[in-house]
Amino acid sequence: MRAEEKRGAVGRSIPRLEGRAKVTGRAEYVHNLRLPGMLYGKIARSTIAHGRIKRIDVAAAQAVEGVHRVVTGADIRALIPDPHYGPAFHDQPILALDKVRYAGEPVAVVLASDPHVAEEAAGLVDVQYEALPAVYDEVEAMTSKAIVHEVLKPAGTFPDLKHFQGRKNTNVALDFRLRRGDAEAALKKADRVFEHTFRTQQVLHVPLEPFVSAAEPGDGTLTIHTASQSPSFVRTEIARLLEWPESKVRVKVPYLGGGFGAKLYIKLEALVAALALLVRRPVKISLTMEEQFYTLTKHAATLRIKSGVAKDGRVTARLCEVWWNGGAYADIGPRITQKSGFTAPGPYDIEHVHIDSYALYTNLPPAGALRGFGIPQLVWAYEGHTDMIARELKMDPVEFRRKNILRDGRPQATGTVMQDAAIDKVLERVAARMDWGKPFDRGSGTVRRGRGVVIGFKAVIAPTTSVAIVNLYADGSCALYCSTVDMGQGSDTAMAQIVAEILGIPIESITVVHPDTEVTPYDMATLGSRSTYHMGNAVRRAAEDARDKLLALAREVGVSVETTPIAEVFRRKYGMQAGNIIGSGSFIPTYMPMDHDTGQTANATPFWMVGATGAEVEVDTETGRVRVTRLVNVADVGTPINPAIVESQLSGAAIMQLGFTMSEKMEFSAGQCTNASLAQYKIPGLLDVPEGMENEAVDAEQKGGPFGAKGVGETGTFGVSPAIANAIDDAVGVRLTSLPLTAEAVYRALRAKQGNPLKD
Amino acid sequence: MRAEEKRGAVGRSIPRLEGRAKVTGRAEYVHNLRLPGMLYGKIARSTIAHGRIKRIDVAAAQAVEGVHRVVTGADIRALIPDPHYGPAFHDQPILALDKVRYAGEPVAVVLASDPHVAEEAAGLVDVQYEALPAVYDEVEAMTSKAIVHEVLKPAGTFPDLKHFQGRKNTNVALDFRLRRGDAEAALKKADRVFEHTFRTQQVLHVPLEPFVSAAEPGDGTLTIHTASQSPSFVRTEIARLLEWPESKVRVKVPYLGGGFGAKLYIKLEALVAALALLVRRPVKISLTMEEQFYTLTKHAATLRIKSGVAKDGRVTARLCEVWWNGGAYADIGPRITQKSGFTAPGPYDIEHVHIDSYALYTNLPPAGALRGFGIPQLVWAYEGHTDMIARELKMDPVEFRRKNILRDGRPQATGTVMQDAAIDKVLERVAARMDWGKPFDRGSGTVRRGRGVVIGFKAVIAPTTSVAIVNLYADGSCALYCSTVDMGQGSDTAMAQIVAEILGIPIESITVVHPDTEVTPYDMATLGSRSTYHMGNAVRRAAEDARDKLLALAREVGVSVETTPIAEVFRRKYGMQAGNIIGSGSFIPTYMPMDHDTGQTANATPFWMVGATGAEVEVDTETGRVRVTRLVNVADVGTPINPAIVESQLSGAAIMQLGFTMSEKMEFSAGQCTNASLAQYKIPGLLDVPEGMENEAVDAEQKGGPFGAKGVGETGTFGVSPAIANAIDDAVGVRLTSLPLTAEAVYRALRAKQGNPLKD
Repeated sequence: MRAEEKRGAVGRSIPRLEGRAKVTGRAEYVHNLRLPGMLYGKIARSTIAHGRIKRIDVAAAQAVEGVHRVVTGADIRALIPDPHYGPAFHDQPILALDKVRYAGEPVAVVLASDPHVAEEAAGLVDVQYEALPAVYDEVEAMTSKAIVHEVLKPAGTFPDLKHFQGRKNTNVALDFRLRRGDAEAALKKADRVFEHTFRTQQVLHVPLEPFVSAAEPGDGTLTIHTASQSPSFVRTEIARLLEWPESKVRVKVPYLGGGFGAKLYIKLEALVAALALLVRRPVKISLTMEEQFYTLTKHAATLRIKSGVAKDGRVTARLCEVWWNGGAYADIGPRITQKSGFTAPGPYDIEHVHIDSYALYTNLPPAGALRGFGIPQLVWAYEGHTDMIARELKMDPVEFRRKNILRDGRPQATGTVMQDAAIDKVLERVAARMDWGKPFDRGSGTVRRGRGVVIGFKAVIAPTTSVAIVNLYADGSCALYCSTVDMGQGSDTAMAQIVAEILGIPIESITVVHPDTEVTPYDMATLGSRSTYHMGNAVRRAAEDARDKLLALAREVGVSVETTPIAEVFRRKYGMQAGNIIGSGSFIPTYMPMDHDTGQTANATPFWMVGATGAEVEVDTETGRVRVTRLVNVADVGTPINPAIVESQLSGAAIMQLGFTMSEKMEFSAGQCTNASLAQYKIPGLLDVPEGMENEAVDAEQKGGPFGAKGVGETGTFGVSPAIANAIDDAVGVRLTSLPLTAEAVYRALRAKQGNPLKD
Repeated sequence: MRAEEKRGAVGRSIPRLEGRAKVTGRAEYVHNLRLPGMLYGKIARSTIAHGRIKRIDVAAAQAVEGVHRVVTGADIRALIPDPHYGPAFHDQPILALDKVRYAGEPVAVVLASDPHVAEEAAGLVDVQYEALPAVYDEVEAMTSKAIVHEVLKPAGTFPDLKHFQGRKNTNVALDFRLRRGDAEAALKKADRVFEHTFRTQQVLHVPLEPFVSAAEPGDGTLTIHTASQSPSFVRTEIARLLEWPESKVRVKVPYLGGGFGAKLYIKLEALVAALALLVRRPVKISLTMEEQFYTLTKHAATLRIKSGVAKDGRVTARLCEVWWNGGAYADIGPRITQKSGFTAPGPYDIEHVHIDSYALYTNLPPAGALRGFGIPQLVWAYEGHTDMIARELKMDPVEFRRKNILRDGRPQATGTVMQDAAIDKVLERVAARMDWGKPFDRGSGTVRRGRGVVIGFKAVIAPTTSVAIVNLYADGSCALYCSTVDMGQGSDTAMAQIVAEILGIPIESITVVHPDTEVTPYDMATLGSRSTYHMGNAVRRAAEDARDKLLALAREVGVSVETTPIAEVFRRKYGMQAGNIIGSGSFIPTYMPMDHDTGQTANATPFWMVGATGAEVEVDTETGRVRVTRLVNVADVGTPINPAIVESQLSGAAIMQLGFTMSEKMEFSAGQCTNASLAQYKIPGLLDVPEGMENEAVDAEQKGGPFGAKGVGETGTFGVSPAIANAIDDAVGVRLTSLPLTAEAVYRALRAKQGNPLKD
């Protein structure tokens, strides 16, 4: 805190702390971990989408030279009587029991010291099934006779799932309902009514580091090394399954090679834990890139949206129905259904809103959180709908939005009054950047140009808790203990900046201790752009606690920290370079639960994330090929802790969503993914990135956020898909309502316009 | 804290927490550690005791197939300009520079992936020396022309060493001086004056796990895995050498296979750190049992003690001179010279005391702390002296002690008024257990029996600091972070008992996190029986802090911890199993520095350790063989936290000292240890343990100690040697004043009594 040390760490684009370690190859990943005596597990998976297991024959696999053991669900059940896990429902077995619910579901594991031996033997596990009728479509699942789960088993951690306990013969895992005003009546009174249906496809997180976990049995203890975004949850859930105190389960997370929501809750952790305890040796399972396709997807969704609009362009009523395709296991799907569901009408000021949002089980791989937590699906629908209405009304789409946007001080659909949501600002900034209203080159001949602008917003999951510890050493350097997982988003750097700012010490002297549940305190998880706000606040409080204790120590020894180095304060107290100051901080925002029948609450979220996207495209009318030539993302991130990291978060998110928009789609045949490889499933490469890629954080402040900051990891995803679809419509007059926007889809739509795609 | 959970953990003989892990082989030791890419280092050592290095030829070693690199002191100096370490003096080079100061000093290191290759090549390092005159005896070192260190370089951490800065041409590293009253004048006035000189030999700690350290370079960071009793010191000292912030150096200590004072400060840590940074790969050095003989010894000492005694048996004056043979590097010797030196007159109430205590450099392997920190050497002298006086005065030795012992409320030689030192109690209890004053079978024929009783006491090193953190998890289990090293003494269990007691939780739910400077907070070191008192107090405060925060949380959510489980308190606050409570506690006792000229202080120690030993022996007068038939140790340990652990500490310490008494001795020829193997250097085996082995903790309370407890790790060592020597004298009338009490020594003494050993 001495003047010469003051650096104003917050608000500066400090290079990432871990950059050098990653570039030099010193960064640790679980994939590199080797433990003495470790066995490798390879998974034998279900070949059918839905069926009863009649018999598992492991003899051929067990006979392979070098195989240590073949483990099935029955072995797991002998260790853990009810081996089902899940954050919302305890529905997912560690290995399939009795029946399988999707093609690719783990049925058995072969353990061997040599992973190649294990892999060969896994192919020899012979399972006989009795096939059952299957359901794949989320809307059909509402009424299908094919029932994925006979009985529903909510986890009990979410009180609002309690009334699903024991429900039978239904694929509906959650039906979120919001009623504000009387949308049906208002629709009847409206001057115009518009209704559109949109669809999104199954896509994948594709972290370049596939799922990997290892478990190491100790003496009445278990250590799990895992590429996880939620070490605290893993510990709690494994302790619950084993009926152990949490202190006996240790979860360690080094660097992650990307997460994007895939590496949340339990993935391989319960499996390696059970295996390690069964064989009393360390066990590691590393999935292949192909196996990621059988582990977790993003929810496909069907979204029906109906609006009543007054003559002057004011939207007076909106009715939203959303069907989320959760696949065979709920994972966090019910939370998405509810927590994102309530923003389905978009960032618009609408008096009468009805929302019905359904989480559905189907016989596809489970769907979970993926960067945006359902929001990109919703924005895809409501911002397509918005443009389609504006077009019908012959209104400028930006002007139409201006007329309807939700401004601070006005109630959102939940009744929560908006604050610190710069919806108007991001709309104006994106319009200005796109030179909206000025002449625009619309192309000519077979290449036509168009543009679109959209806005979107998101609440943060609430209420959730973060805890941090700051350990100030006697030489004035320090360690920050925090369970936020730096999976590439730069959280280590941002958190260290907060500590450096408050303690007035150089950021180089701060070590950020990576998640280790025996060391770093509780954090709900690294998800949903919650870390900067929640953990940032906990870190700030921990650093302030340390600072206050330092000031007290300085007073005790009769010096001022303004003029005395920290090391000297310690020396005066302890006679030598000795002692520590331990500061801790805990943060949980205030929150008020929603009314179960109406979805109303005075406080739906601690903060809002707000984004606007502008896209310019060129469409080749002969081939349908779309080239995105410019992609502008404007966000309200409050006041950035590290502007350079905010910038890369915005572009990273936008490029990821660009893949989901233009090319990515899991193809299924009878529930079997038929393009489970990166040779067939195309993620964006460098050449797919638009030439004009712009990002901007508007001048804003999030009250209650650390130094005015809030999260940004997802904001860039919100608007990319509808902005491009709107631009295509603007260019060539066809409206695509399903993702992805492939050349084929555009071409077919153009052809559907009766041979003359350029009419309109 | 609920009634049914209350267990009264403190005061119970709870089995050691780590027992199962050790018995099942799951306990981790650094010797088992393998790191990817790790190189093994083998040390080439000096073959002479004192000399200038003329030339080091590494060509032959470097040419051995598989050798990665041969490193000498010059290489180290290129990395670290002043590569000298040490807790009291910065006198010890990481590898010898310019000259060698003892036979066995590290001169070069060969690095290879295969330790056998490294060992072979280490034998080929060719060093040419110019021999210098050497000095080995501590008394001769006072005046010898052979100077071990040309210039003295105090570490600066001990202010009282400051005036040694830059001293030249002396082997005296510290001359401690205490003057209370006027001993010279009082001696002149005394009725009788007695003077005796005693000697002790060089011995060894012999932990069954030899020294071992590994260093792992990171990205601007360094992790050191080491079998160390002082991880905090290692971090500070390595950071100082490298000029890095402490946060960039991480020191991890798993279980230790014994320490006994050997594994303190820097041993191999600076060497592996420098090597790892030089070659940018992990480097490990594991010493052999033989190499322990070249690393650290216990101080040999010469002790002259002179007493003036009044007719009634009251000791009126005492003059003590002690010469400590520190070997070639000071290590912690100067502290022993001072901190133990001030108790040289023994636990007696003597008005006039002069003490001169000298730390001396010689050309022998360095000496350091060894279970007792100099006290066994002092008790050896003053309790032999006491018995010899009593014998001369024809007084019963217990009665003579009763007359002179230092009772609570009376000033010790430093002027510090005694408190909570049950000297009278331990004397009475040992006398009672020995049936003192009752008939005793004195043997017959060639086997004669005798017995002896002695008392001893020790101050604790002060002032020192301990810090602890208690992390209470949301399910009510918890972790304790503390840097106390459990090297077999059971500290993990005792510390967990304190936490269990205060939080009212089962001890099984507590995880004690092992020292890791990135995690566990500062602790001065695990030494000198300081942990129970210092760390015990820090742990108590941390647990109380956590308890207070838990109570506050319970109040906040409107429940009582008397009726509500801890997990429920958390759930009410955080809505799920989430959050932590972080309690921290720091402890440094009050202390007043001694006056430099007189050694006087009002507060010399936070507490006193007090012990009494009774021994019964059989002496074979034909062979000189002594059999210890009974060994009784009585101690004031305050109120034990875990009585079973106290019991095993007392017997463990006594058996260790029994080895130093009866058989152990490093033999030297021209400074070269000639019995550097456990085949020649004999530690006690099971058959050497006395049949009658008794231990007792007297009913006592240490005020200011956690739950009334204080340290016990060393107390059993105090009196063993003089009790046996006194018993021999009692049996056969010969007085041995040098250790060890071998059959040969007894036989020679008997022969010296002019052919009739049974006369007297």
